[in-house]
Amino acid sequence: MDKSSPRRQKARMSNAPILLIPGPVQTDPRVKAAMAQDIAPWDPAFRAVYARVRERLVPIAGGVPGTHVCLPLPAGSGHLMLEATLRSFVAPGAKVLVPNNGDYGIRLLRLVRECGRVPVDLPIPEGEAATVEGVQAALAADPAITHVAVVYSETGSGVLNPVAAIARAAEALGRRIIIDAVSALGALPLAIAEHANCDAVVFTANKCLEGMPGLGLSVCPIARVKDCIGGASSWCLDLSDVLRQTEERGFGSIRFTPAAQAIAALDVALDLLEAEGGPGARLARYEANTSVLHEGFASIGLVPYLPRAKQGPVIVNALQPVADPNWELQAFVRALRARGFVMSNFSSTAVPTIRIAAIGANTPEVMRRAIAALGGALDDIGVRQRAAA
Amino acid sequence: MDKSSPRRQKARMSNAPILLIPGPVQTDPRVKAAMAQDIAPWDPAFRAVYARVRERLVPIAGGVPGTHVCLPLPAGSGHLMLEATLRSFVAPGAKVLVPNNGDYGIRLLRLVRECGRVPVDLPIPEGEAATVEGVQAALAADPAITHVAVVYSETGSGVLNPVAAIARAAEALGRRIIIDAVSALGALPLAIAEHANCDAVVFTANKCLEGMPGLGLSVCPIARVKDCIGGASSWCLDLSDVLRQTEERGFGSIRFTPAAQAIAALDVALDLLEAEGGPGARLARYEANTSVLHEGFASIGLVPYLPRAKQGPVIVNALQPVADPNWELQAFVRALRARGFVMSNFSSTAVPTIRIAAIGANTPEVMRRAIAALGGALDDIGVRQRAAA
Repeated sequence: MDKSSPRRQKARMSNAPILLIPGPVQTDPRVKAAMAQDIAPWDPAFRAVYARVRERLVPIAGGVPGTHVCLPLPAGSGHLMLEATLRSFVAPGAKVLVPNNGDYGIRLLRLVRECGRVPVDLPIPEGEAATVEGVQAALAADPAITHVAVVYSETGSGVLNPVAAIARAAEALGRRIIIDAVSALGALPLAIAEHANCDAVVFTANKCLEGMPGLGLSVCPIARVKDCIGGASSWCLDLSDVLRQTEERGFGSIRFTPAAQAIAALDVALDLLEAEGGPGARLARYEANTSVLHEGFASIGLVPYLPRAKQGPVIVNALQPVADPNWELQAFVRALRARGFVMSNFSSTAVPTIRIAAIGANTPEVMRRAIAALGGALDDIGVRQRAAA
Repeated sequence: MDKSSPRRQKARMSNAPILLIPGPVQTDPRVKAAMAQDIAPWDPAFRAVYARVRERLVPIAGGVPGTHVCLPLPAGSGHLMLEATLRSFVAPGAKVLVPNNGDYGIRLLRLVRECGRVPVDLPIPEGEAATVEGVQAALAADPAITHVAVVYSETGSGVLNPVAAIARAAEALGRRIIIDAVSALGALPLAIAEHANCDAVVFTANKCLEGMPGLGLSVCPIARVKDCIGGASSWCLDLSDVLRQTEERGFGSIRFTPAAQAIAALDVALDLLEAEGGPGARLARYEANTSVLHEGFASIGLVPYLPRAKQGPVIVNALQPVADPNWELQAFVRALRARGFVMSNFSSTAVPTIRIAAIGANTPEVMRRAIAALGGALDDIGVRQRAAA
């Protein structure tokens, strides 16, 4: 992107006037400087920051450590947007079928249950994609199911579910669908307009769109939102109220204070998505990243979790080399960080895996360096029994 | 703050490693750069950004403009945290008394009602503070009221409510209290430990704490959170689940992806609060800002909305000079912006007001420049009938 483009200038807001509004308030330059960094929320360095912030706030409220606790609500997450979408489109007490082949399917089931809808679990072996036949059979068996809620890219195993085919199958049986596209939108194909039964495509700014965290979004058919007014049992999570405000005051209107900087950053991220050539070009880069990672794992003696044919372009897992007595995930993560890369310090698969993302503003060249660093980190912690893992 | 302080270095995260995690992902430096700015979400320049982002996302989901709409959930707001707190501590169907002397009291009533609790309105003339006697009478009249929910600093009128005295009165009558300290915490005195009946002090990062938007927080008694497990009817908004996670995995643990940069920025903002001398010193600065604004309004021919004795230290309103035929709020806001200051382009009082914040990283000297700019902006749009307003 040309720095002088009018769009970019607008996103950065010209002339930096002084804010005289009661929040978001004018901040010190040092506070602003802390915004301009990438952060892995699960990284030990960030956890220390988060814990410290929470502890420091208790006395400011006049609380006593040990007696009082500061409870943040990490908002703008995909979970929050999924809950809002379920509340806004699924009637209280209605049944929602969830094809479940991993951690995010399990989370969807819990979101459905805790907001007072009835989850119907469709268990699928982890590492396998949901099938149209399985969904058809489950829907045929229970006419009370009104919705399918399905994860497009299962961020646990790395498998993609065939959401378009599932949407068509659900439509043929008179059911509606909600697509959890949190780690999909921006790269994987989506065509909500082709599915008259699709209530929402749910996503966040900080996955394949390569923006910053703090913003959950749904794309929905306007007519359908209007059909569902009044069922959310929540003001904050009522998407029909967001639409009402939009229609009354415009697309740039604000119901409640948003994570404004994350919105400005998303605008820049969308410039970059366009400059890259759109979701198709981004997917091609992620596919190339995936190939480097999948082949690279083998090259350093790690066993990919999925066969290449079942491997999606978002998360690439390898089996942890647990047979080696020197293997220890946290030590490995620290060694990798010392080599300049941050990976998840947990896995969300049934067996322990090393979890590497193919998404983000990283190229195949960066992935090659990451593979070298992963191999080096294995050396650093003394793991030798690799291919035998 | 010394830039070399260990705390500051941790907040900025050393060495900037490359993220290999599936979101928040590694971002382009241009995306990060867009985070490091102050933004008024209601500012026309930002509205254009917000509207553009929403419009650009629809086709990425395969939607059709006019048929499909992108609905964001502006999260991390005070409203969201208040709803979570109400859900977590007030039983479904229970009654909540809301002393109501302005826009944020009205919003509290709506939050209570829409999440399935029963609001009891205690109307108070705008510009007057809630009284202990009024709360006592309302509680005595209805034994079914379990909670008082009260706004500390009414960000509409600028009046402070006597939350400590109201908490004591509620305790004497066996009722609990939730304090909306959104535009109070960080400057105004709070002593949750002195009120055994206080379930929560609710706030955000971007008001008197002078951090960035994207984070809602509550400080709560741990024992009370545990007494209230299971009533939230929501996974995302269940504070008892936040506490469960905290106890299992530590204060730095993450349930769902947070607005991480806003947390890092809050850590720096807390450094600055300490360096200033804590909430008492910050309140003194805000009081000084308030005096400059209140006296300054008169000096440029504007009539302060509240008498000085009733004026809180957060928001200072002046009556709009509506008697002058040249007065027009949006033109005035534009003229002020051209002079380097952003003010609210709306008022939230019963009569139209000019709404200026005394909070934020602004000093009395900045407030004096703001008054000069306000006077200049009145000149720019040709408003002459001032004192007569």
